[in-house]
Amino acid sequence: MRIDVLTLFPEMFAGVFGSSILGKARDKGIVGLNAVNFRDYANNKHNTVDDYPYGGGGGMVLKPEPLFAAVEDLVTEQAGKPRVILMCPQGETFSQRKAEELAKEPHLIFVCGHYEGYDERIREHLVTDEISIGDYVLTGGELPAMVVIDSVARLLPGVLGNETSAVTDSFSTGLIEHPHYTRPAVFRGWEVPEVLMSGHHAKVEAWRREQSLLRTLKRRPDLLENAELSDKERVWLNQQRSEK
Amino acid sequence: MRIDVLTLFPEMFAGVFGSSILGKARDKGIVGLNAVNFRDYANNKHNTVDDYPYGGGGGMVLKPEPLFAAVEDLVTEQAGKPRVILMCPQGETFSQRKAEELAKEPHLIFVCGHYEGYDERIREHLVTDEISIGDYVLTGGELPAMVVIDSVARLLPGVLGNETSAVTDSFSTGLIEHPHYTRPAVFRGWEVPEVLMSGHHAKVEAWRREQSLLRTLKRRPDLLENAELSDKERVWLNQQRSEK
Repeated sequence: MRIDVLTLFPEMFAGVFGSSILGKARDKGIVGLNAVNFRDYANNKHNTVDDYPYGGGGGMVLKPEPLFAAVEDLVTEQAGKPRVILMCPQGETFSQRKAEELAKEPHLIFVCGHYEGYDERIREHLVTDEISIGDYVLTGGELPAMVVIDSVARLLPGVLGNETSAVTDSFSTGLIEHPHYTRPAVFRGWEVPEVLMSGHHAKVEAWRREQSLLRTLKRRPDLLENAELSDKERVWLNQQRSEK
Repeated sequence: MRIDVLTLFPEMFAGVFGSSILGKARDKGIVGLNAVNFRDYANNKHNTVDDYPYGGGGGMVLKPEPLFAAVEDLVTEQAGKPRVILMCPQGETFSQRKAEELAKEPHLIFVCGHYEGYDERIREHLVTDEISIGDYVLTGGELPAMVVIDSVARLLPGVLGNETSAVTDSFSTGLIEHPHYTRPAVFRGWEVPEVLMSGHHAKVEAWRREQSLLRTLKRRPDLLENAELSDKERVWLNQQRSEK
């Protein structure tokens, strides 16, 4: 997969693209990661990428020309038709399903504005997707783009080792994870639950499932609607609900 | 405000802490940003920070000792009692309200795991908050911590200039922003709406409000429930709904 990011702050990406899973995916040649300063496409005397809004009001607006030119320059025949993704608060809320959808594409181009608005013609005629990572205000689209890239890249074959894929599945099982414990068995007087030291595999599994259900009920009851539950578990959860 | 991040990948933070708004906030002395490798607190022969889970199963679990030692080392009398924030998928979903709450604190300590689980005693006895930035799987807590830090730092007095604060208010007005346009008036045949060139301030404002309402209705109707609307606007929105 090829991933390009259009940004006025390409230096923000160095640490993240170079480290951890993304750095490894890049080194293995599974994903090409490229942060491009779209100011290089401004093509006017002062390298201007933004301008005052028509109709007045505060704030600056990103001009269409540099972003159109940058995207068109990045499209190549080998990579195929790209998804062009605008990071913005009014976009569709990012989800694991969206990550899975994007992971099938050959080429993603992310467009990151900072505190400027986008000229509407960028939205209408250049981008294929608008994504928000959540209902909070950030100073730019760069961190959201990194979040989306991380969640997509880890789904590509060969990026995660087997040892890492097992744990991070909170949203694939539809339930919140059970508690984990490791050594020491007693830390500052706080003990590991006895069942986990029992060596009784079935009891451990039953305890974990129960804890996972209880924790989901307490923290994210909305997830229970779509979770795969047995009839017995549904009855038990209803009992827990009424005892609250 | 002082912000410390406990991570096994402190190099991921260099680009983000050094650039843009966060870099400026740090240079101005408004916020101290510090990424700490908690492996330095492992205090055992092999600098081990994780271990196998009690009860068996895949994945590794972060041990309690290094994280307790690191947090306790970072707490100082001057900075006051810190909020200790665990980034994890099962945490409370991050929101603008949470950002505003955290922006009032003198000292935030973020705890970022990677693909390991956390020993439950960290959750129970060390952290004050558990935060998730959304329902998608990421390879670690580092990017989520950066997201939270960015949203909190931009709320601190003196961080944003006046010119930047105006535009990014999608979630403060409760509505999605109206479209923006800037020069050129015609780009590849696509024209700026006439009303924005009219110089008629009241008409521009009315158009923008209408566009903002329509876009919110189309993309995020859930936001309309808590938005400040006039009676006339409510009636008009109901008409739009029935025409869809």
